Amino acid sequence: MPETVFEVDQSKSMRDQAVPGHNRWHPDIPLATMVRPGSEFRVECREWTDAQLGNNDSANDVRDVDLSVAHMLSGPIGVEGAEPGDLLVVDILDLGPCQGPQEYGDAPGQGWGYTGIFSKQNGGGFLTDEYPDAAKAIWDFHGQVATSRHLPGVRYTGITHPGLFGTAPSAELLARWNRREQALIDRDPDRVPPLALPPLVQSSLGGQATGSLAEQIAREGARTVPARENGGNHDIKNFTRGSRVYYPVHVADAKLSGGDLHFSQGDGEITFCGAIEMGGFIDFGVDLIKGGMETYGVTTNPIFMPGNVEPRYSEFLTFIGISVDADDTNEYLDATLAYKRACLNAVEYLKKFGYTGEQAYLLLGSAPIEGRVSGVVDIPNACCSLYLPTAIFDFDIRPSAAGPAKADRGMSAVAG
Amino acid sequence: MPETVFEVDQSKSMRDQAVPGHNRWHPDIPLATMVRPGSEFRVECREWTDAQLGNNDSANDVRDVDLSVAHMLSGPIGVEGAEPGDLLVVDILDLGPCQGPQEYGDAPGQGWGYTGIFSKQNGGGFLTDEYPDAAKAIWDFHGQVATSRHLPGVRYTGITHPGLFGTAPSAELLARWNRREQALIDRDPDRVPPLALPPLVQSSLGGQATGSLAEQIAREGARTVPARENGGNHDIKNFTRGSRVYYPVHVADAKLSGGDLHFSQGDGEITFCGAIEMGGFIDFGVDLIKGGMETYGVTTNPIFMPGNVEPRYSEFLTFIGISVDADDTNEYLDATLAYKRACLNAVEYLKKFGYTGEQAYLLLGSAPIEGRVSGVVDIPNACCSLYLPTAIFDFDIRPSAAGPAKADRGMSAVAG
Amino acid sequence: MPETVFEVDQSKSMRDQAVPGHNRWHPDIPLATMVRPGSEFRVECREWTDAQLGNNDSANDVRDVDLSVAHMLSGPIGVEGAEPGDLLVVDILDLGPCQGPQEYGDAPGQGWGYTGIFSKQNGGGFLTDEYPDAAKAIWDFHGQVATSRHLPGVRYTGITHPGLFGTAPSAELLARWNRREQALIDRDPDRVPPLALPPLVQSSLGGQATGSLAEQIAREGARTVPARENGGNHDIKNFTRGSRVYYPVHVADAKLSGGDLHFSQGDGEITFCGAIEMGGFIDFGVDLIKGGMETYGVTTNPIFMPGNVEPRYSEFLTFIGISVDADDTNEYLDATLAYKRACLNAVEYLKKFGYTGEQAYLLLGSAPIEGRVSGVVDIPNACCSLYLPTAIFDFDIRPSAAGPAKADRGMSAVAG
Amino acid sequence: MPETVFEVDQSKSMRDQAVPGHNRWHPDIPLATMVRPGSEFRVECREWTDAQLGNNDSANDVRDVDLSVAHMLSGPIGVEGAEPGDLLVVDILDLGPCQGPQEYGDAPGQGWGYTGIFSKQNGGGFLTDEYPDAAKAIWDFHGQVATSRHLPGVRYTGITHPGLFGTAPSAELLARWNRREQALIDRDPDRVPPLALPPLVQSSLGGQATGSLAEQIAREGARTVPARENGGNHDIKNFTRGSRVYYPVHVADAKLSGGDLHFSQGDGEITFCGAIEMGGFIDFGVDLIKGGMETYGVTTNPIFMPGNVEPRYSEFLTFIGISVDADDTNEYLDATLAYKRACLNAVEYLKKFGYTGEQAYLLLGSAPIEGRVSGVVDIPNACCSLYLPTAIFDFDIRPSAAGPAKADRGMSAVAG
Repeated sequence: MPETVFEVDQSKSMRDQAVPGHNRWHPDIPLATMVRPGSEFRVECREWTDAQLGNNDSANDVRDVDLSVAHMLSGPIGVEGAEPGDLLVVDILDLGPCQGPQEYGDAPGQGWGYTGIFSKQNGGGFLTDEYPDAAKAIWDFHGQVATSRHLPGVRYTGITHPGLFGTAPSAELLARWNRREQALIDRDPDRVPPLALPPLVQSSLGGQATGSLAEQIAREGARTVPARENGGNHDIKNFTRGSRVYYPVHVADAKLSGGDLHFSQGDGEITFCGAIEMGGFIDFGVDLIKGGMETYGVTTNPIFMPGNVEPRYSEFLTFIGISVDADDTNEYLDATLAYKRACLNAVEYLKKFGYTGEQAYLLLGSAPIEGRVSGVVDIPNACCSLYLPTAIFDFDIRPSAAGPAKADRGMSAVAG
Repeated sequence: MPETVFEVDQSKSMRDQAVPGHNRWHPDIPLATMVRPGSEFRVECREWTDAQLGNNDSANDVRDVDLSVAHMLSGPIGVEGAEPGDLLVVDILDLGPCQGPQEYGDAPGQGWGYTGIFSKQNGGGFLTDEYPDAAKAIWDFHGQVATSRHLPGVRYTGITHPGLFGTAPSAELLARWNRREQALIDRDPDRVPPLALPPLVQSSLGGQATGSLAEQIAREGARTVPARENGGNHDIKNFTRGSRVYYPVHVADAKLSGGDLHFSQGDGEITFCGAIEMGGFIDFGVDLIKGGMETYGVTTNPIFMPGNVEPRYSEFLTFIGISVDADDTNEYLDATLAYKRACLNAVEYLKKFGYTGEQAYLLLGSAPIEGRVSGVVDIPNACCSLYLPTAIFDFDIRPSAAGPAKADRGMSAVAG
Repeated sequence: MPETVFEVDQSKSMRDQAVPGHNRWHPDIPLATMVRPGSEFRVECREWTDAQLGNNDSANDVRDVDLSVAHMLSGPIGVEGAEPGDLLVVDILDLGPCQGPQEYGDAPGQGWGYTGIFSKQNGGGFLTDEYPDAAKAIWDFHGQVATSRHLPGVRYTGITHPGLFGTAPSAELLARWNRREQALIDRDPDRVPPLALPPLVQSSLGGQATGSLAEQIAREGARTVPARENGGNHDIKNFTRGSRVYYPVHVADAKLSGGDLHFSQGDGEITFCGAIEMGGFIDFGVDLIKGGMETYGVTTNPIFMPGNVEPRYSEFLTFIGISVDADDTNEYLDATLAYKRACLNAVEYLKKFGYTGEQAYLLLGSAPIEGRVSGVVDIPNACCSLYLPTAIFDFDIRPSAAGPAKADRGMSAVAG
Repeated sequence: MPETVFEVDQSKSMRDQAVPGHNRWHPDIPLATMVRPGSEFRVECREWTDAQLGNNDSANDVRDVDLSVAHMLSGPIGVEGAEPGDLLVVDILDLGPCQGPQEYGDAPGQGWGYTGIFSKQNGGGFLTDEYPDAAKAIWDFHGQVATSRHLPGVRYTGITHPGLFGTAPSAELLARWNRREQALIDRDPDRVPPLALPPLVQSSLGGQATGSLAEQIAREGARTVPARENGGNHDIKNFTRGSRVYYPVHVADAKLSGGDLHFSQGDGEITFCGAIEMGGFIDFGVDLIKGGMETYGVTTNPIFMPGNVEPRYSEFLTFIGISVDADDTNEYLDATLAYKRACLNAVEYLKKFGYTGEQAYLLLGSAPIEGRVSGVVDIPNACCSLYLPTAIFDFDIRPSAAGPAKADRGMSAVAG
């Protein structure tokens, strides 16, 4: 365990830390710390909502979560010598939930985590038209394994990863983001949920910035929800231990920030906070490839090499979806719709074994499922497929002439 | 090797076989043969275009291919006792290119296969705006391994699978397909390439049907390009040896048909005939789960369990794409665009090593790459990722401070 | 499928082929054919006993098998330019049971194979003290999958490989072999089974040699049972499709020979013909590393790189053995004994589910189990471990509080 | 992280802990703590020699290590309700080097570990005839990855596991052990290294036992080096995170003890302390299968199911050994010799790239290599194979016509 360069006291808001983090992307957020290429260091992280959620059996906290505070990020961490045009090489050496004296407590990551279905009124999730109400599952950690009292019959090894890390945007890049996202919002400004989230002064946190700089960050800073050219909220479950990421550098010192640690997540993170959300720690090694953006043509997004200790499953039950909606509307090569249909097909299947739709939805968001873009050229139907590992269940979920083992499988936490 | 219930002479068109197959979906195509649940049998297949492509160094044949004849399917194979509402259990026991006396010859699958980029005028592919012209790579088979004179430096084990198998639609289901696809075409009837393909009398082949039945099939039969509720052209690369598929049954006897065998394919099959296309054989075992559609809630698409002998890779270089187009237009959670951007990012990277864009595109279509729907809830940006196995190259494609190993890597076949 | 350079008519003995093979190692066996470095070719093979075993329910044929005729090898195949000191690079492109018109028939490999427990009077197997009597299981092939009427409840994908391939020994090497093996025999000349097998004129076959050369080969030729410096009967189950082997070259033209194809085998091949034995075909590519023996220090045994399409299992039940015999005799770091004890522990476990000891023994010999040398330094006990994939059973073999699912599981073929 | 039931202060000897552990197996060692079936708990461990080795560049400490103090075990941990005849179900939830305030320091496991070749005078290792002198490599931990200044060019993910855990023997079982091991010693009492290690009063530690009980334990207690019927020093590298072990219970409360944590190890642990040795922590869950020894026939050794997060490699270079010694002496089906020859073949190969023999030997002991019992029936030659993952090297170790990339690769620590 290397030196901790960003510390978090899990009993306090990110705002009240000795060195607070930030919740907007902006080039001028002051550095929290500085590291050298070749060094290894630890970063502690808050859970992404700054711990608005509790270890309880009600989903009221999911329903009412204030998204203006998210994501609470640790950083920015400066890397000596990094200049625009470089690739920042980041090794994910280790990560996990809160350690040592902070291992148990009230904040997510302190021995537990949660998966939530967001209310359609509050952003919603991938299946928000079918499941518009808030729901929640609490997960207990047993070493690398998770179980949930809200999802009996399921037990799996977490594919632990950070949801969100990235470098700071340049002022020009930030301006482009705000411009193109506002153009999208303008297509349907009153949509619920909205098409995108513009800068928002309310609840903005700009690290150690104060006064007019803090105000400028609040006014201009990009929201952290989407992935963009700096990396950001990829929610790619394969950023596991042992991964090496190559981030484009857009500003001097690179300014690496991040958080949103996940104990596990399925491809798509379909319930919105569909991962098992937690605070915790992440250990990095960093290096630079000078001028690497041009040399390797890596200009619009990071590239990475996944680690080699992902949980190993060898048997899967696979669900298929095509770009035809439930009302038989046919969309043109729409992989989003195809994956949504594959998810809904999986939900219907799992309901035959006694799970509620919400339970199945929470499960698909958090378990190590694979979501593949299988065919995207066979007009008019995109075809996506969802691979559910059979070994995560303590009963046999494979189809057979005997029919499914239906049982009372409880229910998720709901709002009420 | 079990009994061959559908034979193909690779020197002849599918039309001229002793028992011809078909190239449209229709409930009334006469059975080619009948099998019993519990039995195992072999089906021989033509390459999907009925062998319009040749083992040569010009892409003129790709440019000029007549799509009205595709896909040439073997079948229908009746399964005794199958009734609407059942699940047809299909084991893929083995498959491969042409065997025995037909192992070498002029038809794809006779010792060789091809990958083609379709011309934008003739359907195009996933990157047709960026690569509108026809191109082709010829692959030679070495046991389970493929190499191409048009893609030097690359060698990989094929993830061999059928692109297309399915049961016959009922008359009602067929009518629904034609209705919803026509509604899609009507949104932009003059688009190039078209949004969907309506029934087409020209070149229709209805198996052993003649006279008015053949005419009805030609008039009503659905084109085989997209995957639908009967299975069909999934182009899911994971239908490998050892897979078990559960197809919904929509008509008496199930009427299983298929073809479009692939020696290898990457997720998405992005060049349209992006797989390594071939004729060959496939060995099946079949069984029934009576009433399984309702019992398991499998009503809109097949489900399946992949085989356990896929080629095993453990190191990948991963490219990421988000739903922001090259001109900075931001689309809302558009996984198709995100995957397209990931593909283009990979193409740009590979060009740094000396490949042409067309070569890189052909490679990504045919090699065993993984395409994942990573994040589809982080508004507004969907995030997809493309995993390229590093071991398929005979040089090191990982980024390093030393820079890429640029070399003269030849070129694909082009049209001229 | 490349050109066949060694043909086998499965209805005839290896002696009666147009170009017969051989069953002894000797430098002067005449070449059957010649190939060039860089070429690919097919070799057809007889089952190792020359098809003395039948597809029936008696083990009398195992009990009475004449071992003086084994192994019947295809070859020798000369490689142009190969000289002593080179490494012969051999790619295993493909292999499998008999194809085309020979796919069904009476010889092993024609749609079926067998696993046999040898009688202690006739060589015995690894557990011959515990299981001294002949027994047999017949396996049916379903594509890449095997099932046996003598082992109900089991179904697995074969890890198909050649048991035996090698180059010819030089005269000096052959003399060393005969010398050291006779020295071993001399330690206990009357042992049953014997410690080693000396040259044997009876039933010797020297390819196309006749007259005094044939007599010399018969007199001097080394038996083919053990692996030696030329490769030979490794029975390493990981020589699967896609493997690349580097054989030492001891004579001009290398003289590659082999056979003893296995549809599947567990580590150790514990029942002696513990694999699923078959005739069939194997496709090779060959090349040379000139002077490679010295350059790479590969002088006493071949080295190889396994293929990447082995069946993939991820859950195993593991049995442990240490070098303490059943009567509490403690041997010093004896890995053979430790592995034997692990095998016996596995047999006892499987008997609790209803299998006979012979069935369990046959299963462990043929299924894709892993046998590992786990600890060989913790005096006095070597520790070996045996990994049994749980997915090959159609019932749950994991321990639980509920106890094992005992059932009538039939029995193996026995002698009588 | 569950409650710690056995604490270790890494700055003190195991003898001086608040609750000391033990270094002999005996039924009467007093319980250190008691847990309930269904509970999860943490156990802290000393490195096996009680930290006699240092993070330095001399192997004098390896040469002079006092083995009478080993292995220093944590425990015994009583499990409520456990009775002789039960199976103790032990889940390995997590493990790793020292955490929190003890993460850095002078004891192995505090940020570093070591691999040692023992001197032939002091027990030796697997290749002690070829490498009789002490040598050492120090490893630095980077998350799950290890590197060594004594083995440049190598970097790998640890297959972290405990070398030694077990239940207490009954008095009868202990007497059997002492009897059979003395019989072995008596075959050659003056051998160097010895054939086995009898009870030894010197340095004996019996936990909290004092007075005559401590003396009895010292007099009768079995040495901890070998694996036996209670589990013990298996050194099976596959006891990784996520494993479930079923230990036979021989005494009331089971009395689970253990330690000897390894950051990584190759099959065989060939240098004797061939693993990367460390102190640290291990998290367990426990349960009971009442009467399970008889029910499942698990009477002589534990059984287990490996975890599913082992490092994933897919390309290996494999070395083969047969039971013929360097002087051409042929042994009968001797797997120990065959594995030794495979190891020596690998050492010779690695020397061609610039490593010293000691470096190669240290590497094979500690890296995640697979050692397989491939053939044990092909008289007279046992055949073992050793699978070296190619990805652990930062240069290409595969054979090629170009020859090996020889370089100055430094040297191990040696004694002087």
